Amino acid sequence: MSEKTNQQWGGRFSEPTDAFVARFTASVMFDQRLFRQDIQGSIAHARMLAKVGVLSDAERDDIIRGLSEIRVEIERGDFEWSVELEDVHMNIEAALTRKIGITGKKLHTGRSRNDQVATDIRLYMRDETDLILDEISRLQNGLLELAEREADTIMPGFTHLQTAQPVTFGHHLMAWFEMLSRDYERFVDCRKRINVLPLGAAALAGTTYPIDRFYTAELLQFAAPANNSLDAVSDRDFAIEFCAASSLLLMHMTRMSEELVLWTSSQFNFINLPDRFCTGSSIMPQKKNPDVPELVRGKSGRVYGHLVSLLTLMKSQPLAYNKDNQEDKEPLFDTVDTVKGCLRAFADMIPALEARKDVMREAALRGFSTATDLADYLVRKGVAFRDAHEIVGLSVAYGVRTQKDLGEMSLEELQQFSNIIEADVFDVLSLDGSVAARNHIGGTAPDQVRWAVQQGRQMLQARSVD
Amino acid sequence: MSEKTNQQWGGRFSEPTDAFVARFTASVMFDQRLFRQDIQGSIAHARMLAKVGVLSDAERDDIIRGLSEIRVEIERGDFEWSVELEDVHMNIEAALTRKIGITGKKLHTGRSRNDQVATDIRLYMRDETDLILDEISRLQNGLLELAEREADTIMPGFTHLQTAQPVTFGHHLMAWFEMLSRDYERFVDCRKRINVLPLGAAALAGTTYPIDRFYTAELLQFAAPANNSLDAVSDRDFAIEFCAASSLLLMHMTRMSEELVLWTSSQFNFINLPDRFCTGSSIMPQKKNPDVPELVRGKSGRVYGHLVSLLTLMKSQPLAYNKDNQEDKEPLFDTVDTVKGCLRAFADMIPALEARKDVMREAALRGFSTATDLADYLVRKGVAFRDAHEIVGLSVAYGVRTQKDLGEMSLEELQQFSNIIEADVFDVLSLDGSVAARNHIGGTAPDQVRWAVQQGRQMLQARSVD
Amino acid sequence: MSEKTNQQWGGRFSEPTDAFVARFTASVMFDQRLFRQDIQGSIAHARMLAKVGVLSDAERDDIIRGLSEIRVEIERGDFEWSVELEDVHMNIEAALTRKIGITGKKLHTGRSRNDQVATDIRLYMRDETDLILDEISRLQNGLLELAEREADTIMPGFTHLQTAQPVTFGHHLMAWFEMLSRDYERFVDCRKRINVLPLGAAALAGTTYPIDRFYTAELLQFAAPANNSLDAVSDRDFAIEFCAASSLLLMHMTRMSEELVLWTSSQFNFINLPDRFCTGSSIMPQKKNPDVPELVRGKSGRVYGHLVSLLTLMKSQPLAYNKDNQEDKEPLFDTVDTVKGCLRAFADMIPALEARKDVMREAALRGFSTATDLADYLVRKGVAFRDAHEIVGLSVAYGVRTQKDLGEMSLEELQQFSNIIEADVFDVLSLDGSVAARNHIGGTAPDQVRWAVQQGRQMLQARSVD
Amino acid sequence: MSEKTNQQWGGRFSEPTDAFVARFTASVMFDQRLFRQDIQGSIAHARMLAKVGVLSDAERDDIIRGLSEIRVEIERGDFEWSVELEDVHMNIEAALTRKIGITGKKLHTGRSRNDQVATDIRLYMRDETDLILDEISRLQNGLLELAEREADTIMPGFTHLQTAQPVTFGHHLMAWFEMLSRDYERFVDCRKRINVLPLGAAALAGTTYPIDRFYTAELLQFAAPANNSLDAVSDRDFAIEFCAASSLLLMHMTRMSEELVLWTSSQFNFINLPDRFCTGSSIMPQKKNPDVPELVRGKSGRVYGHLVSLLTLMKSQPLAYNKDNQEDKEPLFDTVDTVKGCLRAFADMIPALEARKDVMREAALRGFSTATDLADYLVRKGVAFRDAHEIVGLSVAYGVRTQKDLGEMSLEELQQFSNIIEADVFDVLSLDGSVAARNHIGGTAPDQVRWAVQQGRQMLQARSVD
Repeated sequence: MSEKTNQQWGGRFSEPTDAFVARFTASVMFDQRLFRQDIQGSIAHARMLAKVGVLSDAERDDIIRGLSEIRVEIERGDFEWSVELEDVHMNIEAALTRKIGITGKKLHTGRSRNDQVATDIRLYMRDETDLILDEISRLQNGLLELAEREADTIMPGFTHLQTAQPVTFGHHLMAWFEMLSRDYERFVDCRKRINVLPLGAAALAGTTYPIDRFYTAELLQFAAPANNSLDAVSDRDFAIEFCAASSLLLMHMTRMSEELVLWTSSQFNFINLPDRFCTGSSIMPQKKNPDVPELVRGKSGRVYGHLVSLLTLMKSQPLAYNKDNQEDKEPLFDTVDTVKGCLRAFADMIPALEARKDVMREAALRGFSTATDLADYLVRKGVAFRDAHEIVGLSVAYGVRTQKDLGEMSLEELQQFSNIIEADVFDVLSLDGSVAARNHIGGTAPDQVRWAVQQGRQMLQARSVD
Repeated sequence: MSEKTNQQWGGRFSEPTDAFVARFTASVMFDQRLFRQDIQGSIAHARMLAKVGVLSDAERDDIIRGLSEIRVEIERGDFEWSVELEDVHMNIEAALTRKIGITGKKLHTGRSRNDQVATDIRLYMRDETDLILDEISRLQNGLLELAEREADTIMPGFTHLQTAQPVTFGHHLMAWFEMLSRDYERFVDCRKRINVLPLGAAALAGTTYPIDRFYTAELLQFAAPANNSLDAVSDRDFAIEFCAASSLLLMHMTRMSEELVLWTSSQFNFINLPDRFCTGSSIMPQKKNPDVPELVRGKSGRVYGHLVSLLTLMKSQPLAYNKDNQEDKEPLFDTVDTVKGCLRAFADMIPALEARKDVMREAALRGFSTATDLADYLVRKGVAFRDAHEIVGLSVAYGVRTQKDLGEMSLEELQQFSNIIEADVFDVLSLDGSVAARNHIGGTAPDQVRWAVQQGRQMLQARSVD
Repeated sequence: MSEKTNQQWGGRFSEPTDAFVARFTASVMFDQRLFRQDIQGSIAHARMLAKVGVLSDAERDDIIRGLSEIRVEIERGDFEWSVELEDVHMNIEAALTRKIGITGKKLHTGRSRNDQVATDIRLYMRDETDLILDEISRLQNGLLELAEREADTIMPGFTHLQTAQPVTFGHHLMAWFEMLSRDYERFVDCRKRINVLPLGAAALAGTTYPIDRFYTAELLQFAAPANNSLDAVSDRDFAIEFCAASSLLLMHMTRMSEELVLWTSSQFNFINLPDRFCTGSSIMPQKKNPDVPELVRGKSGRVYGHLVSLLTLMKSQPLAYNKDNQEDKEPLFDTVDTVKGCLRAFADMIPALEARKDVMREAALRGFSTATDLADYLVRKGVAFRDAHEIVGLSVAYGVRTQKDLGEMSLEELQQFSNIIEADVFDVLSLDGSVAARNHIGGTAPDQVRWAVQQGRQMLQARSVD
Repeated sequence: MSEKTNQQWGGRFSEPTDAFVARFTASVMFDQRLFRQDIQGSIAHARMLAKVGVLSDAERDDIIRGLSEIRVEIERGDFEWSVELEDVHMNIEAALTRKIGITGKKLHTGRSRNDQVATDIRLYMRDETDLILDEISRLQNGLLELAEREADTIMPGFTHLQTAQPVTFGHHLMAWFEMLSRDYERFVDCRKRINVLPLGAAALAGTTYPIDRFYTAELLQFAAPANNSLDAVSDRDFAIEFCAASSLLLMHMTRMSEELVLWTSSQFNFINLPDRFCTGSSIMPQKKNPDVPELVRGKSGRVYGHLVSLLTLMKSQPLAYNKDNQEDKEPLFDTVDTVKGCLRAFADMIPALEARKDVMREAALRGFSTATDLADYLVRKGVAFRDAHEIVGLSVAYGVRTQKDLGEMSLEELQQFSNIIEADVFDVLSLDGSVAARNHIGGTAPDQVRWAVQQGRQMLQARSVD
């Protein structure tokens, strides 16, 4: 990358920019990622300028041809980026002018880098959001498959990481599915606020040229032009909202990751992750580490951090554009890359996850997981809930002392605590009876899980039609 | 507040809770704020239990009567909260049982504190979100008024806090209006995800009672019951999303505040804030400080902090409910209070703000604010934009040396830099000409401001109809 | 609390402060917590003013007597705080003037609320930091006790939550001890930067009175007066640094908490927490939940959040004092309370923790925890480490298939993978042999643990002597 | 960079790592930055292994020679990094083995990547911290120069961005100096906690080889070996503490930046930044933008974000090493680069800053900046402070109405408000009199500024001697 100081604004300046300052303030090292969107936006701008008569049709065509060639050169790796030219916009404009002469300079008519970069970044974010939406759907689809397969598999449900009640593994997976459905909705909502056209705001106040912003919006498939030029060049809400939606998504993925890590430990041993998703140790030959969920869990940090970064960035900035805003890109780009990487890794891995059904069932049998069922049984026999709770509490204390789960006690043992208990109690103390009985919308019964999977399928189907 | 250790779960426990631990883990000090929602949710739950036959109609009526009395007692300040009873739920249930006897204990049938608190907090957040939406509208209404009044007032528009181009003050205010419109939308989107009923999820797996969650949802005006019980008791997305929307709102308010503080400084002196919104100094008798915008600017910190707090809280929590989640309330409550306070202060203050039109105009005259207009003038005369830029740059450098703005130079002086310049140049170098020429959607022309105000009015009108 | 608008700065103001604004901008609701420090600082200020001749001795004595009475009244609960008087300073000053007349007004000579509040908060933070240092020492002392008791107890050491190598439980506890030693040091370092006197900076520029700041510093036991008045009234570094040190401490406590929660699960079952540190469930009678570590883990969120809050608060504030700074107190107070509460809960709980040695040992026997020892054995017999790693990897794969740990295989089985293996291999495959062999500083051998405990004791001893 | 899946841990694994997973979990793309430290640590490790007899002297020498060659190759750009080999450690080890054969594999004896990477990162952070300390000193030195030059220059001091009292510009600059002194101290304190040797902790428990950790520590100039192996491999406190110290530093720089941006605005116009530190506009030819301070202000966001990132990362991680920890590097590296870049830009720019003394003085004359002096004058004549405050308030209100500053009123006008005022009042109403009178440690008097500069010089001198 060549480095010479920029003299684009020479007239008013009496000395060249300091070489370190030029490098320190340049953005082309990271904003070159936007080259496709920059060219896409410039082509639309040129078409609009020709439509309103600011450019001739020939000028427009020269510009479009020149920019298209530049895109190909960049894609091929044949483009020399220059720090001297500060950013992606100036680099491309300079290349265009070298290619098509003076007409290249006319492209900047009626716009400024302030509205240009705001347009580029929105085009970019819209593209990436669409990819992320697809990847969430792919992960959700994997969850539906697995949940259906494991609709009848019984595992302990936990609260406080203590065994609470038996649940079906499919039900647990559908809880993850629900989290992702909200994430999907949030990205859709965020996309509405991305999809607005800043171009035409020029530096901050609009332009004196007879531009047609509705036409440009149409060409770039934006829902509408931005309503206020000062706001258009200084609004970075969409970037923050995107990072907030990403933080929630990553937060969900830390919860899934935490559980995957727990479940692959020797102590839980609930699942097996295929070797291809794990790595080993350079010193401990027996290790098989769940690196993917661990790393995803760790990556939540960077996404939370980027959210804070952007909120900090925008705090107390007076209108309109300030140089501070250049700092919006790297956190945003890294958030996009991280979200896509994490989703891809999970979408690949989840369907390959193998449940150890016997271990799960065995774990559910331990830990008095049907204690609530016993309490409910007593209530149905007329005992007030709080009293039933006390009776079961005493039974459990007895079980802790004698190392027996409730289902392992004799009728006599149970009757020590309440003579209302009869032989039919053993129906409710079974795992299968317990889960099957929670048979209402949202409940853990296998039938509910299968119904929820069906509903989920329809939802994903509806998305793909949109 | 009385303090004795709780023995609600006594059967299984061999020693009472440590007194400090009881206090440390109790939540009634802050969750008592939810008493109205707790009672509202319990009444709906009782109605549903009666509908499905778990309670008799008489039991239901006793419960409703008892809870209604308790609400009145709390509102009157006649209720003794007890740390021994941990939280708002246990306190109210215990009071109910004292009042109506054994039936009070039946209210907890088919639910758990896990789904109960999740329901309470959603009811609360829905109520508060509605109040916030109203207050945003009130502030926006104030901005419309002021923007209309100041549609023709000219001030310098800034980028990099350097004078850039003249804009109208009304246009600047409408930029603030746009920010708030996005905030409004985000709270509306968040409300959709608040408005889902967790009740019926019980502890984590649903319940064996024949509950009707659709009926409860209808009674409490929730859009639907939550689809998955494990998710229902552990989901706090809505709290985080609410804090993210609040952080964006506060970020916008720091930008407005920053400008208000700048504009009330002696150096800018663009506006006057009425004395009733300012405070003075205990030591410097001449001071009149813009405390309200300063404090609002500072309050962004607490809202950003609460967002981080909740994101941290939820990181890596395995399903389903964990005690950690008790920590969701205080950040959320403080966010609600802060957002409402800041909006109220601004909604009161904004319409009372007085513009010093002459100072603003004078400032716009300085700083070469019409330099872009000169460049555009040259382009219209056939000069390529980048060349025009150079010509104007040299003119400005000359102006800096001679302390003359462009409009103050003679035609001869201007012609030093380009002989294309003619007498008609002075039309474009006037402030009024400059702003009037930016007459497209989003532009700063007074007509555009008036049109934007009209559009804004219609939008607010449409909201109030909903 | 009475509410009337403040007219302390009346002369320059033409209308009273708006009632809501007065309440919104008041701080007495939370800064009254500083009353002791405010009075302590005022007494020192009065003494200094008398020493330099600004006050007479009689005036000084009246002031001291008045303030001392006020302190007693506040402590007794006999003081009426007024929102009209904004803050703790004005409330106390007004009470003093009511009590001793015109002399009360003289107390404010040569100071401003800007340097006064900065002094109060530093005095407060110094007091609280000292309490926190003591509580860290108490918790560390509990760890030493427990570590000594469990110096020989063997448990699996984990990396990636996979069994890695056997370690001693005492060694694990001493890792926690090390974390806390760094926390202690950080609070000590922070205290140095707290312990500087702002008083004398007055509003921002110093004062024209002949004050003696060294004398005031000496009276209040500050190391020195602050070097620059503008910095003195606007510096809040110590608050941020305190929250950063607290965030690190809480981060450590989340790690301890996470392990305590894991270890109390049925799946790990490594420890028992006495019932008095746990709570139960309102619906599941068998539950015994590790509420204390869960809650502490959750409380990390609020401390991280407060750190972000204060960093945000201070971003981009021009010198010197701005109203924003009033927002420094609540995050700081809540951080202090949270840190003290969490430390107290842990310092009480840790020594009462019971290890299930047999379960830990059994777990260490599973999971091929001595695989590294086998590799090291091979290396000592001349095999290159990377080759030894491969041999052990194949042995482990065989063990996974045949469900045998390395120590359970026959010599013949082991020799399948390398004929260098001989009968003495079983010495290194024993748990006790494995841990004893790591006998260097920092290693897990019981002797090293005991030595580390001894070193820790000396360190704590040295602290208490300071 | 070549990409093939890693089979370092092949024995236990039945299928190769998924290609995307290999890339997703690799770190060599960013941790190659540590190559110098990795080689430095390995050489010390080899020397220690030879000293204790695990390696022969010949083996040691081969290793040192091989590693030294590799360092040169990397520095020359002649090294092919491979994603297949995951990280910097494996890449270098593989190259070593290619170069010197089987002995290369022996280097890993008695260590693990867990303690190796912890050592590398500490060596790296120690180096970078030293560079940062130097750069802070350079910036402070520039401030001393400028402060000395401007010790007598009078400007308005602000609180609430309202003119408060006159101060000297040198005094203001020395407030910045004080902030940086605390930053310096914090990095020094952090360095103590960086400067501890993890090597020898091996994977987590120490090693069975007879290593001499004190010798390795000595070779690498670490103060001591880490006391606990579990802690040594999982401690990332120093990274968080470094980011906290950096956040405070950047926060200070946002405050300086905010003021520089304000001061270069047309409205303030207090200073001139030389053109070489500014950039222009592509559309507005007159613009000269203070890009450097704006960008530095914006960069606070990324550093705050990285702090949050690392705090989040470490939350709730059980001991010992987890894959999450790989995420510690990028935030840390970017923090280092950002801090160094910002310091360099400021250290270059500050001495070149030109004060517009006349504008500053004129601004101080406006805004009733000597009102406090009038109040103090009245107090010295026997008026109680609060009454004097009222008298001055009324005088200011009169000045606002009549557009006269206090120094511009006639004696008669002043006497309207108090007949105690006499002709000598005009001495205290002068700017020079006002600043000179604040002549105590920390006060704004020119003599105090010169004294503070002298003290600052001595401090910097003492540092360079260390």
